[in-house]
Amino acid sequence: MKFGLFQTVQWPEGSQQEQQYRNAIDQCVLADELGFHSLWMTEHHFTRHAITSDNIALLSFIASRTKNIRLGTAVSVLPFHDPVRLAESTALLDHLSNGRLDVGIGRGYQWSEYDGFGLHLNEGNERFEEGLEILLASWKSEIPFSYAGKYHSYNSAFPQPKPVQKPHPPIWHATTSEPGLRRCAQNDWGVLLAQGTTNTAIEKSINLYRTQVNDLSIPLELGKVALARGMYCASSSKLALDTFLRPYEQTLELAARVSAPPTSAIGVKHRNPFHLDGEEGIEKTIICGDPEQCTIAIEKLAAIGIEYIILFVNLGGMKHEHVSQSLRLFAREVIPRFTK
Amino acid sequence: MKFGLFQTVQWPEGSQQEQQYRNAIDQCVLADELGFHSLWMTEHHFTRHAITSDNIALLSFIASRTKNIRLGTAVSVLPFHDPVRLAESTALLDHLSNGRLDVGIGRGYQWSEYDGFGLHLNEGNERFEEGLEILLASWKSEIPFSYAGKYHSYNSAFPQPKPVQKPHPPIWHATTSEPGLRRCAQNDWGVLLAQGTTNTAIEKSINLYRTQVNDLSIPLELGKVALARGMYCASSSKLALDTFLRPYEQTLELAARVSAPPTSAIGVKHRNPFHLDGEEGIEKTIICGDPEQCTIAIEKLAAIGIEYIILFVNLGGMKHEHVSQSLRLFAREVIPRFTK
Repeated sequence: MKFGLFQTVQWPEGSQQEQQYRNAIDQCVLADELGFHSLWMTEHHFTRHAITSDNIALLSFIASRTKNIRLGTAVSVLPFHDPVRLAESTALLDHLSNGRLDVGIGRGYQWSEYDGFGLHLNEGNERFEEGLEILLASWKSEIPFSYAGKYHSYNSAFPQPKPVQKPHPPIWHATTSEPGLRRCAQNDWGVLLAQGTTNTAIEKSINLYRTQVNDLSIPLELGKVALARGMYCASSSKLALDTFLRPYEQTLELAARVSAPPTSAIGVKHRNPFHLDGEEGIEKTIICGDPEQCTIAIEKLAAIGIEYIILFVNLGGMKHEHVSQSLRLFAREVIPRFTK
Repeated sequence: MKFGLFQTVQWPEGSQQEQQYRNAIDQCVLADELGFHSLWMTEHHFTRHAITSDNIALLSFIASRTKNIRLGTAVSVLPFHDPVRLAESTALLDHLSNGRLDVGIGRGYQWSEYDGFGLHLNEGNERFEEGLEILLASWKSEIPFSYAGKYHSYNSAFPQPKPVQKPHPPIWHATTSEPGLRRCAQNDWGVLLAQGTTNTAIEKSINLYRTQVNDLSIPLELGKVALARGMYCASSSKLALDTFLRPYEQTLELAARVSAPPTSAIGVKHRNPFHLDGEEGIEKTIICGDPEQCTIAIEKLAAIGIEYIILFVNLGGMKHEHVSQSLRLFAREVIPRFTK
């Protein structure tokens, strides 16, 4: 089992942006020291939900303060980027981190972000596909290339630097659809599964992924599916739930709010990223409790095929010292049970 | 007199990109330790002239390794940026550096870059003006703003984070025209003067700036005009010239080459950034020699009103250890003569 850290620097009312960055960076440095496998930084714009608008610059700073931990974007929202610039920036970060970069890609889901950038959520897929094609060409092309697309055009562009990892940093795609999972398997991309979902939903995604891999006669590597998950580990399960549950609910609420279009917006397909199946409770969607309870929750995930979990501890409403304590306790008491 | 460092990580044939970054970063850290006032990183794309395509990510990494030195973009080429994203990225860097950021702005001059991005050099001014307007609104706006321009549109965008320095990081404009200099004086922006020009040309720019300041009845602060200048300081003037002159010529040649349109390009106004007046020799456009000669060259600049020099030492053809030695010698033997 691999364990990573998920960061989406929130900016709650009354907090200072500077302090929020400092806390998140300190936690990332701590995670590196504690031996976490990876660290994933979201990209979001325009709201208190996350002030990670340039996650590459943020990860560049963190690259300088860390040694071994892999650094991921979760995700780079392709429709919001000039894909040539994104190729340049990620390749630079790959240099600065000595090849520790993972590039998560997605089309984004927040209506307020699309609207802010003057884009339509409905053209997200098309922009995603065009952006991805250019991103790959930019990383790999050994001669200048030209491109005339619907949204972007380039003439004899020769993006530099080129990535350290060849042909490019590992790609991780945020997807749960059958074609999306099939594409990941086909292209040797990792899969990023969002948090806030039930084990039932996760199992369904894992099984769908297995089917694609089997169909394609590719060796199954479940470590290529990374599941994001709210986590809080404390000395007692009551303390853990009392500390974490309310901030977690608030985070889901805020995410749902910034994701939804205003009621006046017509004809926009909207996806709530945190839709819980059926009647299961919110506490079933997190790893929260004393080390024993956390271990049990992880064993359940392992039983349905999860081998890589990205832990979301630093919610907006959480105190920095609680996040750090939780990471230390988890690293000391829980991780060793899964890494013999 | 303030002294800064100019960096434009070149990538000469046969060199490794990774090593070029490492050398440049080490030199920046050294400049911080030696007490240099600032460090300015170019933005360039697509050629060996400079692999600083994301100078903000690079400066974010350097911010983490330095304490006091100010960090500047020289410049951020506005026509190549989504200005809302640029506002977000620079504001983040302002946080990461604890308010040490200076933002140089320009319209860019390299034909190959414009063409690579599928843009026309002739629309550079218009894109620059629109980009600047949005950049300022993004930094300063305390409520979401909308904008419908020729090149960019936003709806209720609320870029975050906001800069640490209020209302925004100092702006430095790369310009020598009368309206450009007047605008700098009017708006309290600094002026960036390019390298490769003669003292005669510099004096003309300084006098033009003085006239604007006088006209506007603004107090004259010559420290707001920063001159970029090739510099190499060695134990003897002969050694200095033998080491530096050829790499310097090569840098100017390469810059001129990537700036020029192919002969087939019609109707494009082209500006060679390194146009030398009249018959003066190339060695008159640099600060190069033993500490005594360097001092004399700087005194000449001081006599025409220069109070801030940004030193370009790390040319592509220069060895890393020579650059470091030169910085140390200059800091020990020359700087103290100008900072009593």
